[in-house]
Amino acid sequence: MFKRLDRMQIALTIPEHGDANAAAAVQELLGGKFGEMSTLNNYMFQSFAFRQKKKHRPFYDLVASITAEEFGHVELVNNSINLLTRGVTFTGDPDIAPLQNGLNKRNSYQFIATAQTALPGDSMGRAWTGDNVFSSGNLVLDLLHNFFLELGARTHKMRVYEMTDHPTAREMIGYLLVRGGTHALAYAKALEIATGVDVKKMLPVPDLDNSKFDYARPYIDQGLDNILYTWSDYDYQEIKKIWKGTNPENGEPLQVIQGTPKGAPIPDLDDLPEEFAPGIDQDDYERIAKKLMENM
Amino acid sequence: MFKRLDRMQIALTIPEHGDANAAAAVQELLGGKFGEMSTLNNYMFQSFAFRQKKKHRPFYDLVASITAEEFGHVELVNNSINLLTRGVTFTGDPDIAPLQNGLNKRNSYQFIATAQTALPGDSMGRAWTGDNVFSSGNLVLDLLHNFFLELGARTHKMRVYEMTDHPTAREMIGYLLVRGGTHALAYAKALEIATGVDVKKMLPVPDLDNSKFDYARPYIDQGLDNILYTWSDYDYQEIKKIWKGTNPENGEPLQVIQGTPKGAPIPDLDDLPEEFAPGIDQDDYERIAKKLMENM
Amino acid sequence: MFKRLDRMQIALTIPEHGDANAAAAVQELLGGKFGEMSTLNNYMFQSFAFRQKKKHRPFYDLVASITAEEFGHVELVNNSINLLTRGVTFTGDPDIAPLQNGLNKRNSYQFIATAQTALPGDSMGRAWTGDNVFSSGNLVLDLLHNFFLELGARTHKMRVYEMTDHPTAREMIGYLLVRGGTHALAYAKALEIATGVDVKKMLPVPDLDNSKFDYARPYIDQGLDNILYTWSDYDYQEIKKIWKGTNPENGEPLQVIQGTPKGAPIPDLDDLPEEFAPGIDQDDYERIAKKLMENM
Amino acid sequence: MFKRLDRMQIALTIPEHGDANAAAAVQELLGGKFGEMSTLNNYMFQSFAFRQKKKHRPFYDLVASITAEEFGHVELVNNSINLLTRGVTFTGDPDIAPLQNGLNKRNSYQFIATAQTALPGDSMGRAWTGDNVFSSGNLVLDLLHNFFLELGARTHKMRVYEMTDHPTAREMIGYLLVRGGTHALAYAKALEIATGVDVKKMLPVPDLDNSKFDYARPYIDQGLDNILYTWSDYDYQEIKKIWKGTNPENGEPLQVIQGTPKGAPIPDLDDLPEEFAPGIDQDDYERIAKKLMENM
Amino acid sequence: MFKRLDRMQIALTIPEHGDANAAAAVQELLGGKFGEMSTLNNYMFQSFAFRQKKKHRPFYDLVASITAEEFGHVELVNNSINLLTRGVTFTGDPDIAPLQNGLNKRNSYQFIATAQTALPGDSMGRAWTGDNVFSSGNLVLDLLHNFFLELGARTHKMRVYEMTDHPTAREMIGYLLVRGGTHALAYAKALEIATGVDVKKMLPVPDLDNSKFDYARPYIDQGLDNILYTWSDYDYQEIKKIWKGTNPENGEPLQVIQGTPKGAPIPDLDDLPEEFAPGIDQDDYERIAKKLMENM
Amino acid sequence: MFKRLDRMQIALTIPEHGDANAAAAVQELLGGKFGEMSTLNNYMFQSFAFRQKKKHRPFYDLVASITAEEFGHVELVNNSINLLTRGVTFTGDPDIAPLQNGLNKRNSYQFIATAQTALPGDSMGRAWTGDNVFSSGNLVLDLLHNFFLELGARTHKMRVYEMTDHPTAREMIGYLLVRGGTHALAYAKALEIATGVDVKKMLPVPDLDNSKFDYARPYIDQGLDNILYTWSDYDYQEIKKIWKGTNPENGEPLQVIQGTPKGAPIPDLDDLPEEFAPGIDQDDYERIAKKLMENM
Repeated sequence: MFKRLDRMQIALTIPEHGDANAAAAVQELLGGKFGEMSTLNNYMFQSFAFRQKKKHRPFYDLVASITAEEFGHVELVNNSINLLTRGVTFTGDPDIAPLQNGLNKRNSYQFIATAQTALPGDSMGRAWTGDNVFSSGNLVLDLLHNFFLELGARTHKMRVYEMTDHPTAREMIGYLLVRGGTHALAYAKALEIATGVDVKKMLPVPDLDNSKFDYARPYIDQGLDNILYTWSDYDYQEIKKIWKGTNPENGEPLQVIQGTPKGAPIPDLDDLPEEFAPGIDQDDYERIAKKLMENM
Repeated sequence: MFKRLDRMQIALTIPEHGDANAAAAVQELLGGKFGEMSTLNNYMFQSFAFRQKKKHRPFYDLVASITAEEFGHVELVNNSINLLTRGVTFTGDPDIAPLQNGLNKRNSYQFIATAQTALPGDSMGRAWTGDNVFSSGNLVLDLLHNFFLELGARTHKMRVYEMTDHPTAREMIGYLLVRGGTHALAYAKALEIATGVDVKKMLPVPDLDNSKFDYARPYIDQGLDNILYTWSDYDYQEIKKIWKGTNPENGEPLQVIQGTPKGAPIPDLDDLPEEFAPGIDQDDYERIAKKLMENM
Repeated sequence: MFKRLDRMQIALTIPEHGDANAAAAVQELLGGKFGEMSTLNNYMFQSFAFRQKKKHRPFYDLVASITAEEFGHVELVNNSINLLTRGVTFTGDPDIAPLQNGLNKRNSYQFIATAQTALPGDSMGRAWTGDNVFSSGNLVLDLLHNFFLELGARTHKMRVYEMTDHPTAREMIGYLLVRGGTHALAYAKALEIATGVDVKKMLPVPDLDNSKFDYARPYIDQGLDNILYTWSDYDYQEIKKIWKGTNPENGEPLQVIQGTPKGAPIPDLDDLPEEFAPGIDQDDYERIAKKLMENM
Repeated sequence: MFKRLDRMQIALTIPEHGDANAAAAVQELLGGKFGEMSTLNNYMFQSFAFRQKKKHRPFYDLVASITAEEFGHVELVNNSINLLTRGVTFTGDPDIAPLQNGLNKRNSYQFIATAQTALPGDSMGRAWTGDNVFSSGNLVLDLLHNFFLELGARTHKMRVYEMTDHPTAREMIGYLLVRGGTHALAYAKALEIATGVDVKKMLPVPDLDNSKFDYARPYIDQGLDNILYTWSDYDYQEIKKIWKGTNPENGEPLQVIQGTPKGAPIPDLDDLPEEFAPGIDQDDYERIAKKLMENM
Repeated sequence: MFKRLDRMQIALTIPEHGDANAAAAVQELLGGKFGEMSTLNNYMFQSFAFRQKKKHRPFYDLVASITAEEFGHVELVNNSINLLTRGVTFTGDPDIAPLQNGLNKRNSYQFIATAQTALPGDSMGRAWTGDNVFSSGNLVLDLLHNFFLELGARTHKMRVYEMTDHPTAREMIGYLLVRGGTHALAYAKALEIATGVDVKKMLPVPDLDNSKFDYARPYIDQGLDNILYTWSDYDYQEIKKIWKGTNPENGEPLQVIQGTPKGAPIPDLDDLPEEFAPGIDQDDYERIAKKLMENM
Repeated sequence: MFKRLDRMQIALTIPEHGDANAAAAVQELLGGKFGEMSTLNNYMFQSFAFRQKKKHRPFYDLVASITAEEFGHVELVNNSINLLTRGVTFTGDPDIAPLQNGLNKRNSYQFIATAQTALPGDSMGRAWTGDNVFSSGNLVLDLLHNFFLELGARTHKMRVYEMTDHPTAREMIGYLLVRGGTHALAYAKALEIATGVDVKKMLPVPDLDNSKFDYARPYIDQGLDNILYTWSDYDYQEIKKIWKGTNPENGEPLQVIQGTPKGAPIPDLDDLPEEFAPGIDQDDYERIAKKLMENM
């Protein structure tokens, strides 16, 4: 089971001006083959399908707990996309074409299907698909897949970072580069334990430190590259049998923290009358408010 | 953010003998257009995209908290599929064709791609797709969609129940019929508050009470048709402004419970050497166990 | 614009016993790459996109009028699939698993998504897609495509005929072989006029006369292989500039008939309580009937 | 069966200058999830699959007759897209790159696959798919779906209207907003009769009157928001048992008209030599014309 | 079996400045429905599936040998796309956004998924699919399909040529127009032999000579429009039973050449540090070079 | 460029009786995510996209030469599927339903779309897609991907072997297990050279020697697990800088062979009149033979 908290992993700057094409590009990190929907669902399905959970508990705990973190990543990329649309269009009568700025933008779904918010699709508008999930049941093969998946995801994040300098996008990517780095290392360590091969010596792939990204450094400075959370009140503690020793990139001790980070408030989104979202006028609002308070 | 608990919503019977074609049919309830992947992702994306969360908090809380329950539903359907494969194949040397029983079964992916476990696809093997997510940002339209989605999902569940009498499948469906019923009612009540139209008078659709399903009755007897959980330690409490009054089907008071149900242990899955899952032999196991205990 | 008549092109026998797997195979002729959805949409989109309709009126009239016939073909294949499901399942309480006979059938969507009726997909359950439409705007290329499409469609029909001996399926296929033959010939004649190449000499492809199919012969005996209809009260009469001379297969004169064939009644379908279709019980029915008669 | 008329539902202005990106956006209203291909095929398949047509004739007649109108909507959106490409490219020798203006436009298929005409795909170029069809066979559920589908389609139309001020696009959308409004109301009334729930009180969704759109008003002034056509010479007359009383938006009497509206001529499209469409030069034309007149 | 040569069919100019949107358009000729992936795989699968290869050897040899040429076409289009990206982005620290020029380009996959190289997809980024392969096993139908496919492919090439004046794109298209012309003629001649219908009289479709394209003329001048290669050291020689007589377009003798053309060197591609490709720094390079030379 | 030889890599037994469902399962190894279409196209596209081919020649040569071997694998799996259909149906008049045995088989496309031969799709009939190609341009990441891909492909082969005991299927799989093993080792060695990490110590994954498969042993006995071919007359010789030393599984020296293996004849396929393949009757044959010999 899962519990939800009405907070997200880090605070994101609410921009004055968004950038719809940056939002379109960031979709790759959400619903692309190597986006957060893919990491989430790969680990979720693998955790359900894990055979001999008891016998191989630390590996199960690793995959299961990272699943929960990935939900939060999906949340974070969603929020950054939603913020990146700020100020793209204007409010007015339909006949003045208030959505005209959307006509030449890259992702028309974000103007027609949604109210300028994220969809489970990629940078070309193609829907995320369950074909992106690999779950063979063979422990070594699944771990190897996950290690590869994290490195592919890292590559895409680095490239999207290089495509846009919008601070809201970069804050999100900076943070995810650091957290993705811990996952790559965790799967490397799990693979090493399972096979004896020291794959972590390959890291980082691509061969550029996270510290080379301005927006990643604050999270490195907080030590977030050394921590795995259990993302659970009581469970998944055996990840500490895998996540132990020192971080090969900085020599600092690896650390398991029970639970979640403290997080930050989820930004609210303005209403967007030109998209009819949420589409509740003042009269309706008052009538609704009364109904909501009845019989309480 | 999300936290994970290593329990699932109800206990499922571990069968002596599974039924691979029943497992294939149950996939529709997981990765089909009206499967739990769809309810999960619809509500998740809508909750991220919700505009004016503060102003319309009870509606936001409703969509956001049900999201968390849907994760648990995805988990439950996964586990039932994984259990339904028990005893389908046998263990032995590759040359005796230990997977031969899979050759004529409906879903070959469950023998080739997975170790006889679930995939994010439907009853015909087609992958779940993000195209199944609707998130218009218009509150009334999104609520209407969700109401329709729950009724479509209910129809599919009722039909799959009628296709298989396997107890493990039916336990899961019986429970989900009851819980899905609360979600349909919740969206009906939210729609009523938002629009003044008493759509809950339509229910149930299809017009057959949950009590007509043997495996649903135990959950009705526990009163699970009257309860919404917040699925959160502290948040989403305003759902009680919507979930109030009495249940029109039984006249009993509706009730909001903070947090989650107690749940049940997640069943472990046997190893399946003919699928190389998890594929760790005794020697490897001992070597691995030693490495896991090192430096603790 | 289109007008609809509540009749279909031929009468179909209502079978005592259907055959769900034959229904599944027949889906290829509806929603497959060479199914009637494809012929319909190819000609419909080409007719809309036709440049210089006035200057090249006979060609436009040909594509436009055949479009209307193809709607009727889609209708006919739908009806045959819907009839082929007769008697596959039984009625009863959900707990006796009244849909159990569907569990091992080829197309589970026909039990879960529909009430044992047709869907716009093919024999493997994959949805028909707009990618099947070719509309280049080049007259010769479009005609060549259509000629090829008809021959591919003919091949598929012949093969499905050979897969099932169910009379309802074969009546439909027998008729469509004859009508498809006229379309192949019509496009051949149009191509010949446009290019001077006598492509009709290739026919039939595959090289087996329609008369070799028992269920096609009645329609040949009616002369349906010599007729093109305009499928319009007044328009598309210039097809007679293309459809003229004699039929190379039988030497009989080709004939254009203004309007449509007389057709036959559309068979009604029984209610199917185990699918909750239409799901209206006697009480509801009476209440509804009263409302329908109010204020008339 | 269907008959075709060589007219379309309204006249469209033939523009001096089109707008290829507006054409791309309008594709969403043709081949998108909520486009006219979807309404057409949903109602068409539901009408074929309708169980107990005789017993529930007014409902059957409603779905069946609206199907025919939707063909005309598909035709209208096609024609508007085809007109919107006017003057985008220029004619000349291939080496001067006469299609160069297409290189940076949103939908490259409209330059490469078609001769700047419509395809059955959406605003991002993805093909329409049969997955968009819902046909459960349960009357209440299918009506609820159709009601939701019409509101989703309305939302998309309103948003595309706001994206482009091109008159040809807006004429089409203005008309379809009015006609779509009648369909939404018709399904609302059918639902009300079937369930007793007055869902029409929700309308309009989104909460903005059609009269707020300049290009919709002429059709409102003609009373087109009060009329359902039977789209048939003789059949489907029982829709008047549903479509009766007054229009809740304007208090005027609802009216059923046997047959179709009078319609308007279909605009012809210029030849486009740079696309080789139709690709018939003057010599060919004369040779062809002679062949067409032979043996008449 | 296949052997590979490290050369490609013609030399391509290495441009100073590429054009990312031209690269995107050219993808249609690689991974579109009528792209080289389609011709390659159609002929490859047909050659494997050919029944009675011995009895109908010349036809088998034709399809089998053209397959090998199509591999080379896939190679050529790939290389032209890869060259067309030259100089689109710049090298630098991630924080200066060195990939910023990719943000507004048409195909974001070429910046995120690849290092600005080709993918098996089309001009809208959609992946090539096996659905594009037709292999009925009926000789006449397969030949007719291939004839149509070549003409569709020709149309798309002509249109892309008209969209971009980039020399590297045009060199490739000019060559492929000539070679595609020989394939169209070859299938026409094969069809004529098999059916007696002189379909080659239709050619060219569209009705514009290759000589009207500046970049095709050099290859015509080399006589490449009269030659079929066997693409084999010893096999497939019976194509000369089909490829004989004179070229109807120029009256020159058709000629079969055993083996392959001489070809040209494959252009090397610069490293692209902003894409981390190949991502080997100087230190790594030296260490690797040493390992490569060890134990030789 | 590529040259073709009319031979395949090994001889396959022509069976008296095929097994259509085994043929369906084997499709996974052809057109599945981990099938030979995927290995072929991954390496082909990576070889085209390789940056700094000269500087990193041994790695380029490795990817480029294995591409050519994969063509032969695609050929081999195709031929085994085509042979596996032998004797499934019978010949006769359409009215005796000669394809009736296909009605309940798993892959209806093999009866309707093809003449019982292979298609580029997987075991559930879904088409192979270009989405299966990974080509990041980062050398380490691409090598890691290829290593993972080979292990996934190995897992699928082992499982399909266990599903069917048909000798024709197993001969092919036995051979491909051995050859796939050399590719996995080759990428492991390349990765080791590039990164210093001895990933080959992980092998085999899954942890079961090829020698445990009866049909693999003959190829091991021939030493095929120690050999890489260059698949070229003159090129790609630098693979010997990677493929050197001894095979860690057997301690024998690794060996590079210039060119290809000798191979075996490609089996001919009987005509199949019930599929109209090739559909040439005796009269036609004689007429055609005469035309083929004319003017030689």
